[in-house]
Amino acid sequence: MDELILVKLGGSVITNKNVPFSEDLTTIKRLAKEIHGVRQEKKFRLVVGHGGGSYPHIPASEFKTNDGIIDSKSYEGIAKVQDAASRLNRIIVRELLNVGENAMSIQLSSCSISENGQMKEMFLEPIKKLLDFNMVPVPYGDVGLDRRKGCYIISTERVFDYLARNLSKMDEKYRISKIIMCARVRGVFTDNPDVNSYAELIKEITPKNIKEVESSLKGSFGIDVTGGMLHKVKMLLELAKLGVESEVINAKEPDLLKRALLGERGLGTIIKKD
Amino acid sequence: MDELILVKLGGSVITNKNVPFSEDLTTIKRLAKEIHGVRQEKKFRLVVGHGGGSYPHIPASEFKTNDGIIDSKSYEGIAKVQDAASRLNRIIVRELLNVGENAMSIQLSSCSISENGQMKEMFLEPIKKLLDFNMVPVPYGDVGLDRRKGCYIISTERVFDYLARNLSKMDEKYRISKIIMCARVRGVFTDNPDVNSYAELIKEITPKNIKEVESSLKGSFGIDVTGGMLHKVKMLLELAKLGVESEVINAKEPDLLKRALLGERGLGTIIKKD
Repeated sequence: MDELILVKLGGSVITNKNVPFSEDLTTIKRLAKEIHGVRQEKKFRLVVGHGGGSYPHIPASEFKTNDGIIDSKSYEGIAKVQDAASRLNRIIVRELLNVGENAMSIQLSSCSISENGQMKEMFLEPIKKLLDFNMVPVPYGDVGLDRRKGCYIISTERVFDYLARNLSKMDEKYRISKIIMCARVRGVFTDNPDVNSYAELIKEITPKNIKEVESSLKGSFGIDVTGGMLHKVKMLLELAKLGVESEVINAKEPDLLKRALLGERGLGTIIKKD
Repeated sequence: MDELILVKLGGSVITNKNVPFSEDLTTIKRLAKEIHGVRQEKKFRLVVGHGGGSYPHIPASEFKTNDGIIDSKSYEGIAKVQDAASRLNRIIVRELLNVGENAMSIQLSSCSISENGQMKEMFLEPIKKLLDFNMVPVPYGDVGLDRRKGCYIISTERVFDYLARNLSKMDEKYRISKIIMCARVRGVFTDNPDVNSYAELIKEITPKNIKEVESSLKGSFGIDVTGGMLHKVKMLLELAKLGVESEVINAKEPDLLKRALLGERGLGTIIKKD
Protein backbone atom coordinates (compact mmCIF):
# COMPACT_ATOMS: atom_id res chain seq x y z
CA MET A 1 0.00 0.00 0.00
CA ASP A 2 1.29 3.49 -0.87
CA GLU A 3 2.46 5.70 1.98
CA LEU A 4 -0.13 7.93 3.60
CA ILE A 5 1.25 11.41 4.33
CA LEU A 6 -0.49 14.11 6.36
CA VAL A 7 0.48 17.70 5.54
CA LYS A 8 -0.57 20.67 7.60
CA LEU A 9 -0.47 24.10 6.04
CA GLY A 10 -0.10 26.34 9.08
CA GLY A 11 -2.49 29.24 9.49
CA SER A 12 0.44 31.66 9.57
CA VAL A 13 1.71 30.29 6.24
CA ILE A 14 -1.54 30.66 4.29
CA THR A 15 -2.81 33.89 5.84
CA ASN A 16 -1.22 37.23 6.60
CA LYS A 17 -1.25 37.09 10.33
CA ASN A 18 -1.49 40.81 10.94
CA VAL A 19 -4.37 41.48 8.57
CA PRO A 20 -7.80 40.00 9.43
CA PHE A 21 -9.29 37.76 6.76
CA SER A 22 -6.39 38.05 4.34
CA GLU A 23 -5.01 34.96 2.67
CA ASP A 24 -1.51 34.72 1.19
CA LEU A 25 -2.66 33.58 -2.23
CA THR A 26 0.82 33.53 -3.74
CA THR A 27 2.03 31.06 -1.12
CA ILE A 28 -1.15 28.98 -1.32
CA LYS A 29 -0.83 28.69 -5.11
CA ARG A 30 2.86 27.76 -4.88
CA LEU A 31 2.23 25.09 -2.24
CA ALA A 32 -0.65 23.63 -4.28
CA LYS A 33 1.71 23.41 -7.26
CA GLU A 34 4.45 21.76 -5.21
CA ILE A 35 1.98 19.19 -3.92
CA HIS A 36 0.64 18.46 -7.38
CA GLY A 37 4.16 18.26 -8.81
CA VAL A 38 5.18 15.56 -6.33
CA ARG A 39 1.90 13.70 -6.89
CA GLN A 40 2.85 13.43 -10.57
CA GLU A 41 6.28 12.01 -9.72
CA LYS A 42 5.52 9.65 -6.88
CA LYS A 43 2.59 7.51 -5.76
CA PHE A 44 1.34 8.24 -2.25
CA ARG A 45 -1.91 9.01 -0.49
CA LEU A 46 -2.32 12.44 0.97
CA VAL A 47 -4.35 14.46 3.46
CA VAL A 48 -3.84 18.25 3.38
CA GLY A 49 -5.05 19.86 6.59
CA HIS A 50 -4.82 23.56 7.23
CA GLY A 51 -5.01 26.02 10.07
CA GLY A 52 -7.15 29.12 10.23
CA GLY A 53 -4.69 31.94 10.77
CA SER A 54 -6.24 35.36 10.52
CA TYR A 55 -9.63 33.95 9.42
CA PRO A 56 -11.32 32.04 12.29
CA HIS A 57 -8.86 33.28 14.90
CA ILE A 58 -10.50 36.71 14.77
CA PRO A 59 -14.01 35.66 15.90
CA ALA A 60 -12.51 32.84 18.01
CA SER A 61 -10.59 35.44 20.03
CA GLU A 62 -13.47 37.90 20.17
CA PHE A 63 -15.99 35.32 21.46
CA LYS A 64 -13.46 33.18 23.40
CA THR A 65 -14.85 30.17 21.59
CA ASN A 66 -12.21 27.79 22.96
CA ASP A 67 -13.50 28.48 26.49
CA GLY A 68 -16.90 27.00 25.63
CA ILE A 69 -20.36 28.52 25.99
CA ILE A 70 -19.61 31.34 28.41
CA ASP A 71 -22.46 33.76 27.70
CA SER A 72 -25.37 34.43 25.35
CA LYS A 73 -23.00 35.75 22.65
CA SER A 74 -21.14 32.42 22.49
CA TYR A 75 -23.62 31.00 19.94
CA GLU A 76 -22.92 33.86 17.57
CA GLY A 77 -19.23 33.09 18.06
CA ILE A 78 -19.70 29.43 17.12
CA ALA A 79 -21.47 30.41 13.90
CA LYS A 80 -18.93 33.09 12.98
CA VAL A 81 -15.92 30.86 13.62
CA GLN A 82 -17.39 28.13 11.45
CA ASP A 83 -18.10 30.61 8.67
CA ALA A 84 -14.63 32.16 8.78
CA ALA A 85 -12.89 28.77 8.86
CA SER A 86 -14.99 27.51 6.00
CA ARG A 87 -14.35 30.60 3.86
CA LEU A 88 -10.60 30.05 4.12
CA ASN A 89 -11.08 26.35 3.42
CA ARG A 90 -12.91 27.16 0.18
CA ILE A 91 -9.86 29.14 -0.98
CA ILE A 92 -7.45 26.29 -0.18
CA VAL A 93 -9.69 23.70 -1.86
CA ARG A 94 -10.17 25.91 -4.91
CA GLU A 95 -6.42 26.31 -5.40
CA LEU A 96 -5.88 22.56 -5.03
CA LEU A 97 -8.65 21.93 -7.58
CA ASN A 98 -7.09 24.52 -9.89
CA VAL A 99 -3.77 22.64 -10.07
CA GLY A 100 -5.60 19.37 -10.70
CA GLU A 101 -5.89 17.73 -7.28
CA ASN A 102 -9.29 16.26 -6.39
CA ALA A 103 -9.45 18.00 -3.04
CA MET A 104 -12.42 17.53 -0.70
CA SER A 105 -13.30 19.58 2.38
CA ILE A 106 -13.80 17.71 5.61
CA GLN A 107 -15.88 19.90 7.92
CA LEU A 108 -15.11 18.87 11.49
CA SER A 109 -17.96 20.88 12.98
CA SER A 110 -20.34 18.58 11.03
CA CYS A 111 -18.62 15.25 11.50
CA SER A 112 -17.11 15.20 14.99
CA ILE A 113 -18.00 15.71 18.63
CA SER A 114 -15.85 16.33 21.67
CA GLU A 115 -16.03 16.10 25.43
CA ASN A 116 -14.24 18.77 27.42
CA GLY A 117 -12.12 19.72 24.44
CA GLN A 118 -11.07 16.14 23.65
CA MET A 119 -12.28 14.84 20.32
CA LYS A 120 -14.44 11.84 21.18
CA GLU A 121 -15.89 10.80 17.85
CA MET A 122 -15.27 11.62 14.27
CA PHE A 123 -17.22 10.07 11.41
CA LEU A 124 -14.34 8.48 9.48
CA GLU A 125 -15.94 6.57 6.63
CA PRO A 126 -15.96 9.49 4.14
CA ILE A 127 -12.26 10.22 4.67
CA LYS A 128 -11.42 6.53 4.15
CA LYS A 129 -13.44 6.43 0.93
CA LEU A 130 -11.61 9.53 -0.32
CA LEU A 131 -8.24 7.92 0.41
CA ASP A 132 -9.35 4.76 -1.42
CA PHE A 133 -10.21 7.01 -4.38
CA ASN A 134 -6.77 8.66 -4.14
CA MET A 135 -8.55 11.97 -3.60
CA VAL A 136 -7.21 14.57 -1.15
CA PRO A 137 -9.25 15.11 2.03
CA VAL A 138 -8.82 18.62 3.41
CA PRO A 139 -9.76 18.85 7.10
CA TYR A 140 -9.17 22.21 8.72
CA GLY A 141 -9.15 24.16 11.93
CA ASP A 142 -12.80 24.68 12.85
CA VAL A 143 -15.19 25.19 15.75
CA GLY A 144 -16.21 21.92 17.35
CA LEU A 145 -19.34 21.04 19.32
CA ASP A 146 -18.66 19.71 22.78
CA ARG A 147 -20.81 17.54 25.05
CA ARG A 148 -19.69 19.37 28.20
CA LYS A 149 -18.46 22.87 27.44
CA GLY A 150 -20.64 23.36 24.37
CA CYS A 151 -17.93 24.42 21.96
CA TYR A 152 -14.16 24.57 21.50
CA ILE A 153 -11.61 25.17 18.78
CA ILE A 154 -10.49 22.15 16.79
CA SER A 155 -6.90 22.59 15.68
CA THR A 156 -5.56 20.68 12.71
CA GLU A 157 -3.20 18.96 15.17
CA ARG A 158 -6.19 17.59 17.09
CA VAL A 159 -7.61 16.19 13.87
CA PHE A 160 -4.26 14.62 12.95
CA ASP A 161 -4.01 13.20 16.45
CA TYR A 162 -7.45 11.63 16.12
CA LEU A 163 -6.64 10.28 12.66
CA ALA A 164 -3.31 8.82 13.79
CA ARG A 165 -5.03 7.02 16.67
CA ASN A 166 -8.21 5.88 14.93
CA LEU A 167 -7.92 5.72 11.15
CA SER A 168 -5.96 2.46 11.12
CA LYS A 169 -7.79 0.83 14.04
CA MET A 170 -9.83 -1.44 11.83
CA ASP A 171 -7.54 -1.53 8.85
CA GLU A 172 -3.75 -1.26 8.63
CA LYS A 173 -3.94 0.25 5.16
CA TYR A 174 -4.87 3.58 6.75
CA ARG A 175 -1.71 3.70 8.87
CA ILE A 176 -0.13 7.16 8.61
CA SER A 177 3.46 7.17 7.35
CA LYS A 178 4.43 10.67 8.39
CA ILE A 179 3.27 14.17 9.14
CA ILE A 180 4.71 17.31 7.56
CA MET A 181 3.95 20.54 9.40
CA CYS A 182 4.35 23.62 7.20
CA ALA A 183 5.30 26.64 9.29
CA ARG A 184 6.47 30.12 8.38
CA VAL A 185 9.78 29.60 10.16
CA ARG A 186 12.42 26.90 9.78
CA GLY A 187 11.09 24.69 12.56
CA VAL A 188 10.84 24.79 16.34
CA PHE A 189 13.16 27.31 17.99
CA THR A 190 14.46 27.68 21.52
CA ASP A 191 12.65 31.02 21.67
CA ASN A 192 10.44 33.15 19.45
CA PRO A 193 12.75 33.86 16.48
CA ASP A 194 10.75 37.00 15.64
CA VAL A 195 11.84 38.76 18.82
CA ASN A 196 14.99 36.91 19.84
CA SER A 197 17.66 36.75 17.17
CA TYR A 198 19.68 34.35 19.34
CA ALA A 199 16.89 31.79 19.21
CA GLU A 200 18.26 28.51 17.88
CA LEU A 201 16.61 25.93 15.68
CA ILE A 202 16.02 22.64 17.47
CA LYS A 203 16.90 19.94 14.93
CA GLU A 204 15.27 17.06 16.74
CA ILE A 205 12.69 16.66 19.47
CA THR A 206 12.50 13.29 21.22
CA PRO A 207 11.31 12.08 24.63
CA LYS A 208 14.94 12.63 25.74
CA ASN A 209 15.10 16.39 25.17
CA ILE A 210 11.43 17.35 25.52
CA LYS A 211 11.94 18.75 29.04
CA GLU A 212 14.61 21.14 27.80
CA VAL A 213 12.48 22.12 24.80
CA GLU A 214 9.52 22.66 27.09
CA SER A 215 11.33 25.08 29.32
CA SER A 216 12.47 27.20 26.41
CA LEU A 217 9.15 27.29 24.49
CA LYS A 218 6.93 30.00 25.85
CA GLY A 219 4.10 29.93 23.33
CA SER A 220 3.43 30.03 19.65
CA PHE A 221 4.13 32.98 17.40
CA GLY A 222 1.26 35.09 16.13
CA ILE A 223 -2.41 34.83 17.05
CA ASP A 224 -3.18 31.34 18.23
CA VAL A 225 -6.29 30.22 20.08
CA THR A 226 -5.48 26.54 20.14
CA GLY A 227 -2.73 26.28 22.71
CA GLY A 228 0.49 27.50 21.15
CA MET A 229 3.59 25.79 19.81
CA LEU A 230 4.41 23.81 22.95
CA HIS A 231 0.97 22.17 22.94
CA LYS A 232 1.47 21.20 19.29
CA VAL A 233 4.96 19.81 19.86
CA LYS A 234 3.78 17.70 22.78
CA MET A 235 0.88 16.32 20.75
CA LEU A 236 3.22 15.46 17.89
CA LEU A 237 5.66 13.79 20.28
CA GLU A 238 2.84 11.56 21.54
CA LEU A 239 2.16 10.57 17.92
CA ALA A 240 5.86 9.92 17.39
CA LYS A 241 5.69 7.46 20.29
CA LEU A 242 2.88 5.70 18.42
CA GLY A 243 5.16 5.45 15.40
CA VAL A 244 4.15 8.52 13.39
CA GLU A 245 7.13 10.83 12.89
CA SER A 246 6.63 14.48 12.02
CA GLU A 247 8.77 17.25 10.69
CA VAL A 248 8.18 20.98 11.00
CA ILE A 249 9.48 22.79 7.93
CA ASN A 250 9.51 26.32 6.55
CA ALA A 251 6.86 26.43 3.86
CA LYS A 252 7.55 30.06 3.02
CA GLU A 253 10.75 28.80 1.42
CA PRO A 254 10.05 27.41 -2.06
CA ASP A 255 10.51 23.68 -2.67
CA LEU A 256 10.88 22.65 0.98
CA LEU A 257 7.42 21.04 1.05
CA LYS A 258 8.19 19.37 -2.25
CA ARG A 259 11.47 17.96 -0.93
CA ALA A 260 9.84 16.78 2.29
CA LEU A 261 7.06 15.05 0.33
CA LEU A 262 9.66 13.36 -1.85
CA GLY A 263 11.16 11.87 1.29
CA GLU A 264 13.98 14.19 2.37
CA ARG A 265 14.45 14.44 6.14
CA GLY A 266 16.22 16.96 8.32
CA LEU A 267 14.86 20.04 6.59
CA GLY A 268 13.56 21.57 9.81
CA THR A 269 12.69 20.07 13.18
CA ILE A 270 12.06 16.33 13.31
CA ILE A 271 9.82 15.05 16.09
CA LYS A 272 10.49 11.37 16.62
CA LYS A 273 10.44 8.68 19.25
CA ASP A 274 14.20 8.18 19.70
CA MET B 1 -40.75 21.66 23.68
CA ASP B 2 -40.94 24.24 20.87
CA GLU B 3 -41.93 23.01 17.42
CA LEU B 4 -39.14 21.92 15.11
CA ILE B 5 -39.67 23.14 11.54
CA LEU B 6 -37.64 22.11 8.51
CA VAL B 7 -37.50 24.61 5.65
CA LYS B 8 -36.06 23.83 2.26
CA LEU B 9 -35.02 26.68 0.02
CA GLY B 10 -35.27 25.12 -3.42
CA GLY B 11 -32.32 25.39 -5.77
CA SER B 12 -34.48 27.11 -8.35
CA VAL B 13 -35.53 29.74 -5.78
CA ILE B 14 -32.04 30.74 -4.66
CA THR B 15 -30.21 30.48 -7.99
CA ASN B 16 -31.00 31.67 -11.49
CA LYS B 17 -31.59 28.37 -13.15
CA ASN B 18 -30.50 29.38 -16.61
CA VAL B 19 -27.21 30.98 -15.61
CA PRO B 20 -24.46 28.71 -14.22
CA PHE B 21 -23.20 29.68 -10.77
CA SER B 22 -25.51 32.65 -10.31
CA GLU B 23 -27.39 33.10 -7.07
CA ASP B 24 -30.54 35.19 -6.69
CA LEU B 25 -29.21 37.35 -3.89
CA THR B 26 -32.33 39.54 -3.67
CA THR B 27 -34.52 36.53 -2.98
CA ILE B 28 -31.98 34.97 -0.58
CA LYS B 29 -31.77 38.21 1.42
CA ARG B 30 -35.55 38.57 1.57
CA LEU B 31 -36.06 34.96 2.70
CA ALA B 32 -33.37 35.36 5.38
CA LYS B 33 -35.21 38.46 6.63
CA GLU B 34 -38.58 36.68 6.65
CA ILE B 35 -37.08 33.81 8.65
CA HIS B 36 -35.45 36.15 11.13
CA GLY B 37 -38.65 38.20 11.44
CA VAL B 38 -40.69 35.16 12.43
CA ARG B 39 -37.96 34.01 14.82
CA GLN B 40 -38.36 37.33 16.65
CA GLU B 41 -42.14 36.86 16.94
CA LYS B 42 -42.45 33.18 17.74
CA LYS B 43 -40.40 30.53 19.53
CA PHE B 44 -39.55 27.49 17.40
CA ARG B 45 -36.53 25.45 16.43
CA LEU B 46 -35.47 25.57 12.81
CA VAL B 47 -33.41 23.76 10.19
CA VAL B 48 -32.91 25.59 6.88
CA GLY B 49 -31.85 23.20 4.13
CA HIS B 50 -31.21 24.29 0.59
CA GLY B 51 -30.82 22.85 -2.86
CA GLY B 52 -28.01 23.51 -5.29
CA GLY B 53 -29.73 24.87 -8.39
CA SER B 54 -27.32 26.16 -10.96
CA TYR B 55 -24.28 25.64 -8.69
CA PRO B 56 -23.61 21.90 -8.14
CA HIS B 57 -26.03 20.80 -10.85
CA ILE B 58 -23.59 21.98 -13.50
CA PRO B 59 -20.67 19.66 -12.57
CA ALA B 60 -23.16 16.99 -11.39
CA SER B 61 -24.63 16.85 -14.90
CA GLU B 62 -21.26 17.04 -16.64
CA PHE B 63 -19.73 14.18 -14.63
CA LYS B 64 -22.99 12.22 -14.12
CA THR B 65 -22.17 12.14 -10.41
CA ASN B 66 -25.50 10.61 -9.42
CA ASP B 67 -24.65 7.52 -11.51
CA GLY B 68 -21.66 6.75 -9.27
CA ILE B 69 -18.02 6.21 -10.23
CA ILE B 70 -18.38 5.53 -13.93
CA ASP B 71 -14.93 6.44 -15.25
CA SER B 72 -11.61 8.02 -14.26
CA LYS B 73 -13.11 11.52 -14.46
CA SER B 74 -15.72 10.72 -11.80
CA TYR B 75 -13.33 11.68 -8.98
CA GLU B 76 -12.90 15.14 -10.43
CA GLY B 77 -16.70 15.33 -10.58
CA ILE B 78 -17.03 14.44 -6.89
CA ALA B 79 -14.60 17.20 -5.93
CA LYS B 80 -16.19 19.80 -8.20
CA VAL B 81 -19.74 19.06 -7.05
CA GLN B 82 -18.70 19.39 -3.41
CA ASP B 83 -16.95 22.67 -4.12
CA ALA B 84 -19.87 24.14 -6.05
CA ALA B 85 -22.43 23.05 -3.43
CA SER B 86 -20.31 24.45 -0.66
CA ARG B 87 -19.79 27.79 -2.41
CA LEU B 88 -23.54 28.30 -2.64
CA ASN B 89 -23.91 27.18 0.98
CA ARG B 90 -21.47 29.88 2.10
CA ILE B 91 -23.68 32.51 0.48
CA ILE B 92 -26.84 31.21 2.18
CA VAL B 93 -25.12 30.96 5.57
CA ARG B 94 -23.60 34.43 5.21
CA GLU B 95 -27.00 35.99 4.51
CA LEU B 96 -28.55 34.20 7.49
CA LEU B 97 -25.66 35.43 9.67
CA ASN B 98 -26.13 38.93 8.30
CA VAL B 99 -29.75 39.13 9.49
CA GLY B 100 -28.74 37.80 12.90
CA GLU B 101 -29.42 34.07 12.73
CA ASN B 102 -26.70 31.79 14.11
CA ALA B 103 -26.62 29.60 11.03
CA MET B 104 -24.28 26.61 10.77
CA SER B 105 -23.38 24.59 7.67
CA ILE B 106 -23.89 20.86 7.83
CA GLN B 107 -21.70 19.27 5.16
CA LEU B 108 -23.26 15.94 4.23
CA SER B 109 -20.25 14.78 2.21
CA SER B 110 -18.28 14.88 5.50
CA CYS B 111 -20.86 13.46 7.88
CA SER B 112 -22.85 10.81 6.03
CA ILE B 113 -22.43 7.66 3.99
CA SER B 114 -24.80 5.86 1.67
CA GLU B 115 -25.28 2.46 0.10
CA ASN B 116 -26.60 2.34 -3.44
CA GLY B 117 -27.90 5.89 -3.17
CA GLN B 118 -29.71 5.29 0.14
CA MET B 119 -28.37 7.31 3.05
CA LYS B 120 -27.23 4.72 5.58
CA GLU B 121 -25.58 6.76 8.28
CA MET B 122 -25.41 10.39 9.19
CA PHE B 123 -23.52 11.69 12.20
CA LEU B 124 -26.37 13.41 14.05
CA GLU B 125 -24.88 14.65 17.29
CA PRO B 126 -23.72 18.05 15.96
CA ILE B 127 -27.15 18.86 14.51
CA LYS B 128 -28.83 17.91 17.81
CA LYS B 129 -26.43 20.15 19.75
CA LEU B 130 -27.17 23.04 17.39
CA LEU B 131 -30.92 22.59 17.91
CA ASP B 132 -30.37 22.52 21.69
CA PHE B 133 -28.52 25.83 21.29
CA ASN B 134 -31.41 27.21 19.21
CA MET B 135 -28.94 27.73 16.38
CA VAL B 136 -29.94 27.06 12.74
CA PRO B 137 -28.36 24.01 11.08
CA VAL B 138 -28.07 24.44 7.31
CA PRO B 139 -27.70 21.10 5.51
CA TYR B 140 -27.65 21.30 1.73
CA GLY B 141 -27.65 19.36 -1.49
CA ASP B 142 -24.18 17.86 -1.81
CA VAL B 143 -22.22 14.97 -3.26
CA GLY B 144 -22.34 11.90 -1.06
CA LEU B 145 -19.90 9.03 -0.74
CA ASP B 146 -21.42 5.62 -1.34
CA ARG B 147 -20.29 2.16 -0.21
CA ARG B 148 -21.36 0.52 -3.48
CA LYS B 149 -21.52 3.01 -6.32
CA GLY B 150 -18.84 5.32 -4.96
CA CYS B 151 -20.79 8.56 -5.13
CA TYR B 152 -24.25 9.99 -5.64
CA ILE B 153 -26.11 13.26 -5.26
CA ILE B 154 -27.65 13.96 -1.87
CA SER B 155 -30.79 16.03 -2.29
CA THR B 156 -32.11 18.13 0.58
CA GLU B 157 -35.19 15.85 0.54
CA ARG B 158 -32.98 12.84 1.27
CA VAL B 159 -31.48 14.67 4.22
CA PHE B 160 -34.94 15.64 5.51
CA ASP B 161 -36.09 12.05 5.02
CA TYR B 162 -33.16 10.78 7.08
CA LEU B 163 -33.73 13.40 9.77
CA ALA B 164 -37.47 12.65 9.97
CA ARG B 165 -36.73 8.95 10.43
CA ASN B 166 -33.73 9.16 12.74
CA LEU B 167 -33.46 12.43 14.62
CA SER B 168 -36.15 11.56 17.17
CA LYS B 169 -35.28 7.86 17.48
CA MET B 170 -33.57 8.27 20.81
CA ASP B 171 -35.34 11.40 21.94
CA GLU B 172 -38.84 12.67 21.23
CA LYS B 173 -37.73 16.27 21.63
CA TYR B 174 -36.23 16.10 18.13
CA ARG B 175 -39.54 15.14 16.51
CA ILE B 176 -40.11 17.25 13.39
CA SER B 177 -43.35 19.27 13.43
CA LYS B 178 -43.54 20.14 9.74
CA ILE B 179 -41.64 20.69 6.53
CA ILE B 180 -41.96 23.78 4.36
CA MET B 181 -40.68 23.39 0.80
CA CYS B 182 -39.91 26.71 -0.88
CA ALA B 183 -40.37 26.45 -4.64
CA ARG B 184 -40.44 29.05 -7.40
CA VAL B 185 -44.03 28.12 -8.32
CA ARG B 186 -47.17 27.98 -6.18
CA GLY B 187 -46.92 24.27 -5.41
CA VAL B 188 -47.23 20.98 -7.27
CA PHE B 189 -49.05 21.25 -10.59
CA THR B 190 -50.74 18.69 -12.82
CA ASP B 191 -48.16 19.53 -15.49
CA ASN B 192 -45.16 21.82 -15.93
CA PRO B 193 -46.72 25.29 -15.48
CA ASP B 194 -43.88 26.86 -17.48
CA VAL B 195 -44.94 25.15 -20.68
CA ASN B 196 -48.60 24.29 -20.06
CA SER B 197 -50.77 27.22 -19.08
CA TYR B 198 -53.66 24.84 -18.34
CA ALA B 199 -51.63 23.10 -15.63
CA GLU B 200 -53.58 23.19 -12.39
CA LEU B 201 -52.34 23.55 -8.84
CA ILE B 202 -52.90 20.41 -6.75
CA LYS B 203 -54.03 21.67 -3.34
CA GLU B 204 -53.53 18.43 -1.46
CA ILE B 205 -51.58 15.24 -2.02
CA THR B 206 -52.55 12.23 0.10
CA PRO B 207 -52.27 8.46 -0.33
CA LYS B 208 -55.75 8.66 -1.91
CA ASN B 209 -54.84 10.83 -4.91
CA ILE B 210 -51.15 9.98 -5.32
CA LYS B 211 -51.81 7.67 -8.33
CA GLU B 212 -53.52 10.50 -10.19
CA VAL B 213 -50.77 12.95 -9.26
CA GLU B 214 -48.17 10.44 -10.35
CA SER B 215 -49.62 10.02 -13.83
CA SER B 216 -49.70 13.75 -14.41
CA LEU B 217 -46.22 14.59 -13.06
CA LYS B 218 -43.61 13.98 -15.71
CA GLY B 219 -40.56 15.43 -14.04
CA SER B 220 -39.35 18.46 -12.24
CA PHE B 221 -38.89 21.86 -13.82
CA GLY B 222 -35.42 23.13 -14.59
CA ILE B 223 -32.13 21.31 -14.23
CA ASP B 224 -32.46 18.57 -11.66
CA VAL B 225 -30.08 15.69 -11.09
CA THR B 226 -31.81 14.25 -8.06
CA GLY B 227 -34.90 12.61 -9.47
CA GLY B 228 -37.41 15.33 -10.31
CA MET B 229 -40.59 16.56 -8.66
CA LEU B 230 -42.37 13.18 -8.58
CA HIS B 231 -39.53 11.61 -6.61
CA LYS B 232 -39.70 14.47 -4.12
CA VAL B 233 -43.46 14.28 -3.73
CA LYS B 234 -43.35 10.54 -3.11
CA MET B 235 -40.61 10.96 -0.50
CA LEU B 236 -42.63 13.67 1.26
CA LEU B 237 -45.75 11.49 1.17
CA GLU B 238 -43.83 8.72 2.95
CA LEU B 239 -42.88 11.25 5.63
CA ALA B 240 -46.51 12.38 5.87
CA LYS B 241 -47.43 8.76 6.64
CA LEU B 242 -44.89 8.88 9.48
CA GLY B 243 -46.67 11.97 10.80
CA VAL B 244 -44.61 14.80 9.26
CA GLU B 245 -46.77 16.98 7.04
CA SER B 246 -45.22 19.19 4.38
CA GLU B 247 -46.33 22.08 2.29
CA VAL B 248 -44.86 23.27 -1.01
CA ILE B 249 -45.15 27.05 -1.30
CA ASN B 250 -44.06 29.76 -3.70
CA ALA B 251 -41.06 31.45 -2.11
CA LYS B 252 -40.65 33.93 -4.96
CA GLU B 253 -43.79 35.61 -3.58
CA PRO B 254 -42.94 37.84 -0.61
CA ASP B 255 -44.26 36.86 2.83
CA LEU B 256 -45.44 33.36 1.92
CA LEU B 257 -42.57 31.70 3.81
CA LYS B 258 -43.22 34.05 6.72
CA ARG B 259 -46.91 33.15 6.81
CA ALA B 260 -46.17 29.43 6.54
CA LEU B 261 -43.65 29.67 9.40
CA LEU B 262 -46.25 31.50 11.49
CA GLY B 263 -48.55 28.50 11.04
CA GLU B 264 -50.81 29.32 8.09
CA ARG B 265 -51.77 26.29 5.99
CA GLY B 266 -53.16 25.94 2.49
CA LEU B 267 -50.78 28.42 0.87
CA GLY B 268 -49.64 25.95 -1.80
CA THR B 269 -49.72 22.15 -1.97
CA ILE B 270 -50.11 20.26 1.30
CA ILE B 271 -48.74 16.73 1.44
CA LYS B 272 -50.43 14.86 4.26
CA LYS B 273 -51.47 11.40 5.32
CA ASP B 274 -55.25 11.76 4.93
